Amino acid sequence: MYEQVKAIKDGTAVEKPIYNHVTGLLDPPELIKPPKILVIEGLHPMYDQRVRDLLDFSIYLDISNEVKFAWKIQRDMAERGHSLESIKASIEARKPDFDAYIDPQKQYADAVIEVLPTQLIPDDNEGKVLRVKLIMKEGVEFFSPVYLFDEGSSISWIPCGRKLTCSYPGIKFSYGPDAYYGHEVSVLEMDGQFDRLDELIYVESHLSNISTKFYGEVTQQMLKHADFPGSNNGTGLFQTIVGLKIRDLFEQIVASRAKTPVEATKA
Amino acid sequence: MYEQVKAIKDGTAVEKPIYNHVTGLLDPPELIKPPKILVIEGLHPMYDQRVRDLLDFSIYLDISNEVKFAWKIQRDMAERGHSLESIKASIEARKPDFDAYIDPQKQYADAVIEVLPTQLIPDDNEGKVLRVKLIMKEGVEFFSPVYLFDEGSSISWIPCGRKLTCSYPGIKFSYGPDAYYGHEVSVLEMDGQFDRLDELIYVESHLSNISTKFYGEVTQQMLKHADFPGSNNGTGLFQTIVGLKIRDLFEQIVASRAKTPVEATKA
Repeated sequence: MYEQVKAIKDGTAVEKPIYNHVTGLLDPPELIKPPKILVIEGLHPMYDQRVRDLLDFSIYLDISNEVKFAWKIQRDMAERGHSLESIKASIEARKPDFDAYIDPQKQYADAVIEVLPTQLIPDDNEGKVLRVKLIMKEGVEFFSPVYLFDEGSSISWIPCGRKLTCSYPGIKFSYGPDAYYGHEVSVLEMDGQFDRLDELIYVESHLSNISTKFYGEVTQQMLKHADFPGSNNGTGLFQTIVGLKIRDLFEQIVASRAKTPVEATKA
Repeated sequence: MYEQVKAIKDGTAVEKPIYNHVTGLLDPPELIKPPKILVIEGLHPMYDQRVRDLLDFSIYLDISNEVKFAWKIQRDMAERGHSLESIKASIEARKPDFDAYIDPQKQYADAVIEVLPTQLIPDDNEGKVLRVKLIMKEGVEFFSPVYLFDEGSSISWIPCGRKLTCSYPGIKFSYGPDAYYGHEVSVLEMDGQFDRLDELIYVESHLSNISTKFYGEVTQQMLKHADFPGSNNGTGLFQTIVGLKIRDLFEQIVASRAKTPVEATKA
């Protein structure tokens, strides 16, 4: 993987091997020409330090065990008819490898999206209303963490009130500096979900450093993908913002390195 | 009291009776000519509805029992040599009259300054670090409640962080809509105290609707009275802001009622 990523970044096309999950063999390779933005998606993009060093920006999607379990029950039990025991067993069976090879990569990510159960509904275990954290590393070149009201302070904000009425259980944001695996980060958290357009635009208008090119761009993007799962909560909001951040990073990197027009970004 | 306040508001001088606490008799009365701003200070200014109706703005200073007790111990035990028992007995003896005649007046106040023990120091009972609430009635003519960041939402804010470093135990603000004796209010709360000028100006710069005439006027006023008790905490901050609010009310009332230049404001 390192050699191929390096070759692409150096402007050389590579033949990417394709593993076939059904046959267990390799299909004919796919020719990858150096793109403007290279997105490396998968289970181990940050495992090898040599690969990490080639990445301009890295993102880790961290689903908490509670939410993972609720989602798996929804899919495997309700939709596929599996038993609760077999679902538990399947999660348990994967856990050692997950803990050893997947999970440790999050410490290297420039942004982590952490998906947790809501705290707005007491004892909720449905996993439908989510609390989502956007953990943003400080000091990353071309990346300015998003903030709420006052950069660097600690804030909690319930926008639902006199100006904005929300449906139950409401929306709550938190923002503040923190430490994550020994490095300094800023954390933005959203608990709850948007039910109406005015809730979404109201929240967007109070966030800073979201790298939009016009007022309401986050809202516009989220409405465009209103049928995607998570489009009404923090997973959709933060993925949208991270998307705008990648565009911003791309433009800044291109502008700063006129001599190396090929960039690697990984989601 | 009603007749005298009415007469002064109508532009007529009155002879105010002076009760002598030592002799228990009345001293010669004091002539009060109608002033530009009439401040009625004392234990019962909002007890009589006819007097309340004459007030353009009213303020109630509400010291919680815990803080009252801590302050009384400090003064009567440390400075006057009274016993803890006698202090407790003296507070208890006054309580029935206080509850019947003084305390109920706070429901009529346009602004209440509530002084409570800090929540920043676990189990604190020294009463030195204070948590102070400014409870502001909504819908009062010429009075726009102060707010933090986003009017009408619920916010908590710890300004001490990356941009502003504070000494222990730090400073915490809260703001939000609430109900107080059945009417709608906005509440601004400050817990902790200012130790340095930059803490004070930083906080002032993030408050809105504070009726200042120039940037930093609250800070300037508080520094001018830096030797006053409470000048480094919420009691001083909120008294200063209420003072600016009274000036603002006075100017708006004068401008709106060219035909009645005499106003009544009560602290």
